[in-house]
Amino acid sequence: MANKSELAKRMLKYRNVIIKLKNLGIVKVFSDNIADTSGLSSSQVRKDFSSLSIKGSKKGGYQIQYLVDRFEEILGAKNEQKVIIVGYGNIGKAIINYQNLNNDICKIVAAFDIDKEKTNSGLDTPVYHISELDSFSKKNKINIGIIAVPEEVANEVYEHMYNAGFKGILNFTRIHLKEIEGITIKTINIDLQIENLFYLVSLKEQSKDA
Amino acid sequence: MANKSELAKRMLKYRNVIIKLKNLGIVKVFSDNIADTSGLSSSQVRKDFSSLSIKGSKKGGYQIQYLVDRFEEILGAKNEQKVIIVGYGNIGKAIINYQNLNNDICKIVAAFDIDKEKTNSGLDTPVYHISELDSFSKKNKINIGIIAVPEEVANEVYEHMYNAGFKGILNFTRIHLKEIEGITIKTINIDLQIENLFYLVSLKEQSKDA
Repeated sequence: MANKSELAKRMLKYRNVIIKLKNLGIVKVFSDNIADTSGLSSSQVRKDFSSLSIKGSKKGGYQIQYLVDRFEEILGAKNEQKVIIVGYGNIGKAIINYQNLNNDICKIVAAFDIDKEKTNSGLDTPVYHISELDSFSKKNKINIGIIAVPEEVANEVYEHMYNAGFKGILNFTRIHLKEIEGITIKTINIDLQIENLFYLVSLKEQSKDA
Repeated sequence: MANKSELAKRMLKYRNVIIKLKNLGIVKVFSDNIADTSGLSSSQVRKDFSSLSIKGSKKGGYQIQYLVDRFEEILGAKNEQKVIIVGYGNIGKAIINYQNLNNDICKIVAAFDIDKEKTNSGLDTPVYHISELDSFSKKNKINIGIIAVPEEVANEVYEHMYNAGFKGILNFTRIHLKEIEGITIKTINIDLQIENLFYLVSLKEQSKDA
């Protein structure tokens, strides 16, 4: 699963940079271009493309439209992906602002909260009471959601979403949610990323001093 | 570097969960507790602890205060870590709200923007003009920063920060920044995480149908 997941990540990166390059007006693209914009090595790009039966021209390079079409075939057309968020506190609001800004690809279509005073169906991203989560997600065929609730209720909300048939969760709380069979969890922990930066930078500085 | 970086990540996780468990009043802690709260296996925990010369009691388990002290020794005391952010648009504001809420550990102490109308030194997180970045970061000994600017100026801002002596960057834009010698970059791409969830969930569903 780890290798599959790594390849999947790279494929999504490829598609994203290919669409960006196409939007810039590029017609023919080289593995070096894709490497530079995706942060992967050009040999990795060529290897992956070859394993996906993506063929370059004799003179080298790929027609960008061919790549767009090919990745659409492989990954499915890039429809707008709809998710919901549970937790409409400051953090939930910040994530909605961040995510829905200039973004036609992954949209947060509704928020859910336990506080009835926060519900407001008139907003761009409507806020419903948590009791409506099951019916809303079934009706709109949504099975991927974001958790942005206080730590002490994170596991309770996770269980609720699991029982409501959710299959994928993006966890924005600072605690670890245990992956249960049939559900995939990704965690975004900004603290940990910053701490990790501090640590790696201090390691580098120490090795310089030594 | 990859292994060192993985161990570093685990060590930061250990410290974080140990402090959380201690705050809950726990005195004696078992590798299973740490595994459950960190998402690592208990054998990994025991292996890492043993490699860090952290010793359990004869009956199994660790005194939590001993672990707190030991990780402080290894990683340094957990001082408040200060970073700055470049870009005070909607996304920058959202990140500041998210990051500075209930957080004494990693604080965004100032924001910088090219738009003079946004500068405001009276806010909780003051906003300065980008031209003040060099002097502010030198004066406050800050060399880790977040980039939250529009895509088209991300590389320019990155170069500016590199020249100003920054050593670590957390990239919140949707484009790839190339790592230069002497600087460490981490990227948080929420789109990619959500897309990855969609892809992994669809893979699982397909294998169920097959």
